[in-house]
Amino acid sequence: MKIAVLGVGRIGAMHADLIQNHVVGAEVAGVFDVFDGAAAEVASRLGVRRFDSANAALASDADAVAICTSTPTHVDLIVQAADAGKAIFCEKPVSLDLDEVDRGLAAVAEANVPLHIGFNRRFDPSHAAVQRAVADGEVGELRQLRISSRDPEPPPLDYVKVSGGIFLDMTIHDFDMARFVSGSEVVEVNATGAVMVDDAIGQAGDFDTVTVMLTHKNGTVTTIDNCRQSAFGYDQRVEAFGSLGMATSENHTATSMVKRTAAGSLGDVVPHFFLERYIPSYVHQWQQFIEAVVEDQPTPVTGVDGRAPLVIGLAAKQSAESGLPVTL
Amino acid sequence: MKIAVLGVGRIGAMHADLIQNHVVGAEVAGVFDVFDGAAAEVASRLGVRRFDSANAALASDADAVAICTSTPTHVDLIVQAADAGKAIFCEKPVSLDLDEVDRGLAAVAEANVPLHIGFNRRFDPSHAAVQRAVADGEVGELRQLRISSRDPEPPPLDYVKVSGGIFLDMTIHDFDMARFVSGSEVVEVNATGAVMVDDAIGQAGDFDTVTVMLTHKNGTVTTIDNCRQSAFGYDQRVEAFGSLGMATSENHTATSMVKRTAAGSLGDVVPHFFLERYIPSYVHQWQQFIEAVVEDQPTPVTGVDGRAPLVIGLAAKQSAESGLPVTL
Amino acid sequence: MKIAVLGVGRIGAMHADLIQNHVVGAEVAGVFDVFDGAAAEVASRLGVRRFDSANAALASDADAVAICTSTPTHVDLIVQAADAGKAIFCEKPVSLDLDEVDRGLAAVAEANVPLHIGFNRRFDPSHAAVQRAVADGEVGELRQLRISSRDPEPPPLDYVKVSGGIFLDMTIHDFDMARFVSGSEVVEVNATGAVMVDDAIGQAGDFDTVTVMLTHKNGTVTTIDNCRQSAFGYDQRVEAFGSLGMATSENHTATSMVKRTAAGSLGDVVPHFFLERYIPSYVHQWQQFIEAVVEDQPTPVTGVDGRAPLVIGLAAKQSAESGLPVTL
Amino acid sequence: MKIAVLGVGRIGAMHADLIQNHVVGAEVAGVFDVFDGAAAEVASRLGVRRFDSANAALASDADAVAICTSTPTHVDLIVQAADAGKAIFCEKPVSLDLDEVDRGLAAVAEANVPLHIGFNRRFDPSHAAVQRAVADGEVGELRQLRISSRDPEPPPLDYVKVSGGIFLDMTIHDFDMARFVSGSEVVEVNATGAVMVDDAIGQAGDFDTVTVMLTHKNGTVTTIDNCRQSAFGYDQRVEAFGSLGMATSENHTATSMVKRTAAGSLGDVVPHFFLERYIPSYVHQWQQFIEAVVEDQPTPVTGVDGRAPLVIGLAAKQSAESGLPVTL
Repeated sequence: MKIAVLGVGRIGAMHADLIQNHVVGAEVAGVFDVFDGAAAEVASRLGVRRFDSANAALASDADAVAICTSTPTHVDLIVQAADAGKAIFCEKPVSLDLDEVDRGLAAVAEANVPLHIGFNRRFDPSHAAVQRAVADGEVGELRQLRISSRDPEPPPLDYVKVSGGIFLDMTIHDFDMARFVSGSEVVEVNATGAVMVDDAIGQAGDFDTVTVMLTHKNGTVTTIDNCRQSAFGYDQRVEAFGSLGMATSENHTATSMVKRTAAGSLGDVVPHFFLERYIPSYVHQWQQFIEAVVEDQPTPVTGVDGRAPLVIGLAAKQSAESGLPVTL
Repeated sequence: MKIAVLGVGRIGAMHADLIQNHVVGAEVAGVFDVFDGAAAEVASRLGVRRFDSANAALASDADAVAICTSTPTHVDLIVQAADAGKAIFCEKPVSLDLDEVDRGLAAVAEANVPLHIGFNRRFDPSHAAVQRAVADGEVGELRQLRISSRDPEPPPLDYVKVSGGIFLDMTIHDFDMARFVSGSEVVEVNATGAVMVDDAIGQAGDFDTVTVMLTHKNGTVTTIDNCRQSAFGYDQRVEAFGSLGMATSENHTATSMVKRTAAGSLGDVVPHFFLERYIPSYVHQWQQFIEAVVEDQPTPVTGVDGRAPLVIGLAAKQSAESGLPVTL
Repeated sequence: MKIAVLGVGRIGAMHADLIQNHVVGAEVAGVFDVFDGAAAEVASRLGVRRFDSANAALASDADAVAICTSTPTHVDLIVQAADAGKAIFCEKPVSLDLDEVDRGLAAVAEANVPLHIGFNRRFDPSHAAVQRAVADGEVGELRQLRISSRDPEPPPLDYVKVSGGIFLDMTIHDFDMARFVSGSEVVEVNATGAVMVDDAIGQAGDFDTVTVMLTHKNGTVTTIDNCRQSAFGYDQRVEAFGSLGMATSENHTATSMVKRTAAGSLGDVVPHFFLERYIPSYVHQWQQFIEAVVEDQPTPVTGVDGRAPLVIGLAAKQSAESGLPVTL
Repeated sequence: MKIAVLGVGRIGAMHADLIQNHVVGAEVAGVFDVFDGAAAEVASRLGVRRFDSANAALASDADAVAICTSTPTHVDLIVQAADAGKAIFCEKPVSLDLDEVDRGLAAVAEANVPLHIGFNRRFDPSHAAVQRAVADGEVGELRQLRISSRDPEPPPLDYVKVSGGIFLDMTIHDFDMARFVSGSEVVEVNATGAVMVDDAIGQAGDFDTVTVMLTHKNGTVTTIDNCRQSAFGYDQRVEAFGSLGMATSENHTATSMVKRTAAGSLGDVVPHFFLERYIPSYVHQWQQFIEAVVEDQPTPVTGVDGRAPLVIGLAAKQSAESGLPVTL
């Protein structure tokens, strides 16, 4: 499968690398970026074509497009790619505007092309094993779900300002995880937000530390802890408690070395960078996307899966601001 | 120090045993129970006196009383013991009625006797180490606190009916832990409750699975997961996340044996009985109570510490029933 | 069962405490020690009789004796206790002299009384679980066994001088463990010894750091690492590798608290004192000894089990000194 | 740096892949294999030249050669590559014949070209962290070293027959690790061998389960447990005990998922394939080799490091066969 990569910033360049070198049955059809330099650099490194425009990419022989551009451009590109009959991989979030999301999904529905939203954490082997334990009934009926998700350091303030806020930028991954692991839609959102990391984030109108309580349709209650800063590394854990037991994905450490001295046992650090933790998830995601498209099956993360976390995120924002629960 | 033990049901008998055989500098002055048989059995086993009445115990040469009778009798006994000038150890909760609690505390204040409320988990070495890591600044400014607290099996339905409900009977320990670890009062309570273990518990007007979100005065947000049933054992964990790191008390296992086979690595079970986990905490508690009384220092868990979790518990009940946050 | 405790130094006093307060179905019949003060102190604390002599203890109505005196007195006391028809619990080692051991065992055989040798580690729940995994076939056919056994600090030099040497004093526990877990006799011993902790130990003619390789009759090879000093605490681990997997008893930690910071994850210390680790094993040992005597069954650790590790220990000493393997 | 890869069987093909796609500053100059098909497949996949002969590769503009052919061809190729002035990377073992090794090393010395022996485990982040803890003095003076090294399944019998035996084929990695971590030469070897996995291995004159005790010049004693079959996965652990503490590299697991049920806690499997564990070590090895060559520094694993484990391995074989220790 030939895949045109639109947008080769940090995440797009990573996707291009993975597709070209690590994904079986796929290659990069070419890359495009509004910054010519970025596109040229990636094209040269991978030995692939550079498209002059997104349109050129869509007009090419690519079977699929990977939309990795800035969020506000996602929906237009989805619509154009759908019109061009391409299979679509779109980075999350689809949009910060629900009407826009719906416009994109409508175009996809009309064109009847595959659409996949890049919630890569579903493909992390450890989190996926938790989901499977739940889905297979190994922990019984799910009762409570805990998600700890904390970044090592806050992003640049300029990014924070256009991110849509922590609920739509960061917690949105956890909303997706809650739906994925529980297999049940969210019916109520109860969120609190605080500024504990950097006052400038608060001055920009955002929170940096949030706790969210979700009630699912099946009665499961999910709690999510988010923080823009975690001194001990990239904290990524999911814990599913059910009638028969509990499945947990623990953090990964840099090495398995443990040092024991009179001070106790010292284990290695949790790496700070999300790529160190999630590279395998991106590869698995591509592999499953390609398989789904080739076999004409639904993509693993559909448009509906892209829309639902946005709805939860908007409700969480409202709840944190009003101090009241929001029913969906 | 000679301690009269009032009430020698399961918990009172345990206290009598510990005082007599494991606590340095203390002995049982005698025991009383409304069930003569229970008192006689414990008195004989420990080789101590059996009192004919609580009054007889209070009139004895005991230096202190351990009030381990049923909850509704606590406050009257506190008042009488205060009048008798005894140092008082009272099992939690002091009462399910806030006015009653205040009546007890007033009597204690007037008599100026030591009062300690039996929140033993503060003395568990693992939880206490978490609290110390926070208090000593080792995890920096506290941001988020997670408490997982799940019983192996629900208590008998008869007990559930008189327990005051899960928030006052079970979560009250976690409310105390949240205040203890954070060192900050709770200002808002957001609770949800569900019946997922046993419908009979719901028919008795109680929940068996609850999730609570607390906002502390210092901005810390605590989430508590409670369930009356945990298939994998007695789940007791506290996790304090702060600006410099995170301190966690993990569950204890029956043995340190790990078996590795083609199926993975199998660690031993988490014991099911609370005594197996918390016996050391009860001993430490007695030791610190005695030390405080002897040295004329405040007891480690004061009347204020007995009252506050009840206030939070009543608010949690109201929140879970109304679906709205309750401000304290 | 009434048990007379002969010798109430550190280990004997502990046995007396446990029998009186923690072992179901047993009580201390009285205590004896060549140091009157020690006997008086323990007798007073436990509220039991003080015997004027070992003979007085043996002439009493005690059902059993616990021989906790110094090693050179063990065999004489075993012989006298056997003659008196008492059930016998004897601390390890029976003797440092094989002929003496045999004299003791002969007397026991003639009198047909129960004899148990105090290899308490067999009753440690974690090591016992490893043994059970092997005995139950859960790790398949045993291939290799590893025992790590290191004391926090060396004993006083005066003790070292009369201890019989590290192989008979310290490694003897591991020789017993190797027989216990493998269920197979040792046929060859290959030992190396070094002085790495304290030169004074070497000047006293002993090693402080030894590594032993044992070949069992069933082909299993056991390796043992001993050191008189371990900076990180009392290191006590057994690892059984077989055709179907591996069972390991890990070290115990003081608390379950884990602290995660930018430096990594810091777990609590391994306690330094053997009593903190092995108290439960002593209680279980007494319980099983009593049960065996009452039910007229073989004791859990027989005279043969007391003799075999001494044979291995003597061979290890010879091997370490000669640099050659010793066949048994 | 342009590297010609000689021999593209399983290990050589992996090296070619890593060099071309994962190693910074290196590319494959071309590949050669006596099986044309293997060479053609790899050449085509990576888009590189296929050499008709090893001579052609040595005559090319390659800066270095990676010798990944069968062991008996290593020394001739080393000599030719040295004559051609190439930097040399040679897979272990250099040869099974010590004279041959010396012939190779002599040629390298005369040509004064860089030579690196592929003991990749030194570059595994977890083992390397153990070595660093020792080298940096964090565990104090090294006293005892334990290496557990077990393959998931035995290799094909045909391979066993030409492998040189388990000591030269498998344990040789651990001999290298012992020298690497201890930083001290081996002076005595004490080995035992057994056939416990497959009788056919014994009939081929080899062992499948061996335990080795090494004495180092600095007094450290290393024990090595090897088995050709490990039901629970690829067992790869190093444990260094010193005067100040202990550093251990634990096994890696497939995921960080842990499932807790009434049966205990179930952690994920240890992967079975060595590539899953050691891929990062191969990349790090290439990176450090290239850096050393570019900066004209000694390679991280020199010819001396290639020779020493062979000497130990031959002694181990002799010891296991004679039942006696062998002094080096």
